[in-house]
Amino acid sequence: MKVSHVPMDLRLKHTFRIARGASDERRNLRVEIEDAGRLGLGEAAPILRYGEDRESAAKAVDAMAPRLRDPRRFATAAADAAVAGQHSAQAAVDMALHDLAAQRMGVPLYEMLGLDPSRTPVTSFTIGLDTPEVVVQKVKEASAYAVLKVKMGSDDDRAVLEAVRDTTDQPLRVDANEGWTLEGAESRLAWLAKLGVEFVEQPMPADRLEDIRALRKHSPLPFYADESVHNAADIPRLAGAFDGINIKLMKCGGLGEALRMIAVARAHGMKVMLGCMIESSIAITAAAHLSPLVDAADLDGSVLIAEDPYDGATIVDGKLVLPDRPGLGVVARGR
Amino acid sequence: MKVSHVPMDLRLKHTFRIARGASDERRNLRVEIEDAGRLGLGEAAPILRYGEDRESAAKAVDAMAPRLRDPRRFATAAADAAVAGQHSAQAAVDMALHDLAAQRMGVPLYEMLGLDPSRTPVTSFTIGLDTPEVVVQKVKEASAYAVLKVKMGSDDDRAVLEAVRDTTDQPLRVDANEGWTLEGAESRLAWLAKLGVEFVEQPMPADRLEDIRALRKHSPLPFYADESVHNAADIPRLAGAFDGINIKLMKCGGLGEALRMIAVARAHGMKVMLGCMIESSIAITAAAHLSPLVDAADLDGSVLIAEDPYDGATIVDGKLVLPDRPGLGVVARGR
Repeated sequence: MKVSHVPMDLRLKHTFRIARGASDERRNLRVEIEDAGRLGLGEAAPILRYGEDRESAAKAVDAMAPRLRDPRRFATAAADAAVAGQHSAQAAVDMALHDLAAQRMGVPLYEMLGLDPSRTPVTSFTIGLDTPEVVVQKVKEASAYAVLKVKMGSDDDRAVLEAVRDTTDQPLRVDANEGWTLEGAESRLAWLAKLGVEFVEQPMPADRLEDIRALRKHSPLPFYADESVHNAADIPRLAGAFDGINIKLMKCGGLGEALRMIAVARAHGMKVMLGCMIESSIAITAAAHLSPLVDAADLDGSVLIAEDPYDGATIVDGKLVLPDRPGLGVVARGR
Repeated sequence: MKVSHVPMDLRLKHTFRIARGASDERRNLRVEIEDAGRLGLGEAAPILRYGEDRESAAKAVDAMAPRLRDPRRFATAAADAAVAGQHSAQAAVDMALHDLAAQRMGVPLYEMLGLDPSRTPVTSFTIGLDTPEVVVQKVKEASAYAVLKVKMGSDDDRAVLEAVRDTTDQPLRVDANEGWTLEGAESRLAWLAKLGVEFVEQPMPADRLEDIRALRKHSPLPFYADESVHNAADIPRLAGAFDGINIKLMKCGGLGEALRMIAVARAHGMKVMLGCMIESSIAITAAAHLSPLVDAADLDGSVLIAEDPYDGATIVDGKLVLPDRPGLGVVARGR
């Protein structure tokens, strides 16, 4: 078994702004694991907010490599070998091991997991922060998507959302990225509900859990946790504060933990959404293979980049379509 | 895909007594699913306490058969087709579909699930209720096991346990099968702790959860839930009342739900044990494939019957050993 990694510079189609900052490029890391003549692929999209970057992820993969003894033990191998705090590196190794295992068994990953590929949900398309005029332009370009997710956090939030609603009848979700305080939150929820928004993602900071719980008591809209939830063990204390969770492979460390999170959320009667960072089709496709199990998907990361180096899961009429090749089923473009 | 079922009469080596009753024979049901020239095997051990018997299980399998459209969707197919309240039938269909899937992929079930077969735990051997003399005789015959699980519920409990401890140094666990009341429970825990017992299974009835929670506050021994826990959704409310859960395929409806239960228990910081009813090596082996994920196993069901019609998982020096044939890896004896 040979483990290696290669930098991936992903240029974005448009500058991407959320409440915490803006970017034109993502510095991801591709992980390759070779075993018995097969190549398993993984991808790390390091999360700066949690102290990760491409360099720390690469170091973590190097540290994990000698600890990976048997690629067949994909359910536990990446977690057992993981470097503390480097979840995107763990996710990359984990997805490469799942890719290898399903290739070895000769089936697509969804089939190795016993899932029904016809049950994939629609995916939302994310509209970053911008002026109402630019947002409206982006919404017009996104007419092929079945749902839009609009980032909140500018002074113009209400004008932006109203302009979006005037432009399209598509279902809308909003992501506050921890940007709200209790003050003004109730009136904000009222006008969002009036615009027919489906749910609000992470209205307040992760460390304001009791404020979120209090706000939800009278909220006309459901709340989904994002920054408040990293792994399965985080979920029990969120019951009652959130109606659902947003699972991202880069937060939780891979497909195995994502499956466990789905189980824990369901046991607490919570909804489940699969989200992403800005990622190529390697990581997006890995997450998409789990999507028959979830209620909502926001797996548009690869659509936001200018030149996706891989083909994998696609979006047809807004719905995720899984590749039926063995493993993750991703192939380098132009091959 | 062809689904059929065959009665299995399993004669016991010894009359088996627990707090609720006694039996000399188990009336189980074998389920066979044929698809593409392969045969998947499952087994239902109906639980009388929950209104199941072999006839109701057989009817449930008949009702499920036409609803099973695609054997590849093993993660959800049995649950989607299930008949309400007939969990052992659901478990039988679920394990047959897992057997078929892993055979199709050409790997043992543990490998399809990415698990490490060297991580199986030891399994306990269960000593049913009897006079101290008979119990001591049974303990002597069980010297090959690494752990003993002793059933409580007779007037002689203390004499029985003391006689067992005088006979062997093997680690001991006890199963009260809901037999205690709060009265006398603290002193009972004190002498059990003094005898070095590891934990107590289901000390009080499932409907006395608050009494169990109160008792646990000052208990020197951990509590495992059995009758209090059927499926993953039961687990959150047990946190704080029990230290661990006993998962049985016949209670939860199959391998998929068992995996979800493990995830939920772990998220709540609880321990996990895999248990069984009196079952042949079909159902015991299915559960054993999950055992690399758990802390404790009580998978001795097939050892208690006089003539196990199948070979599957074995017990070597007390530890579970998984077959490395494709699928469940069980084969009819004498073939």
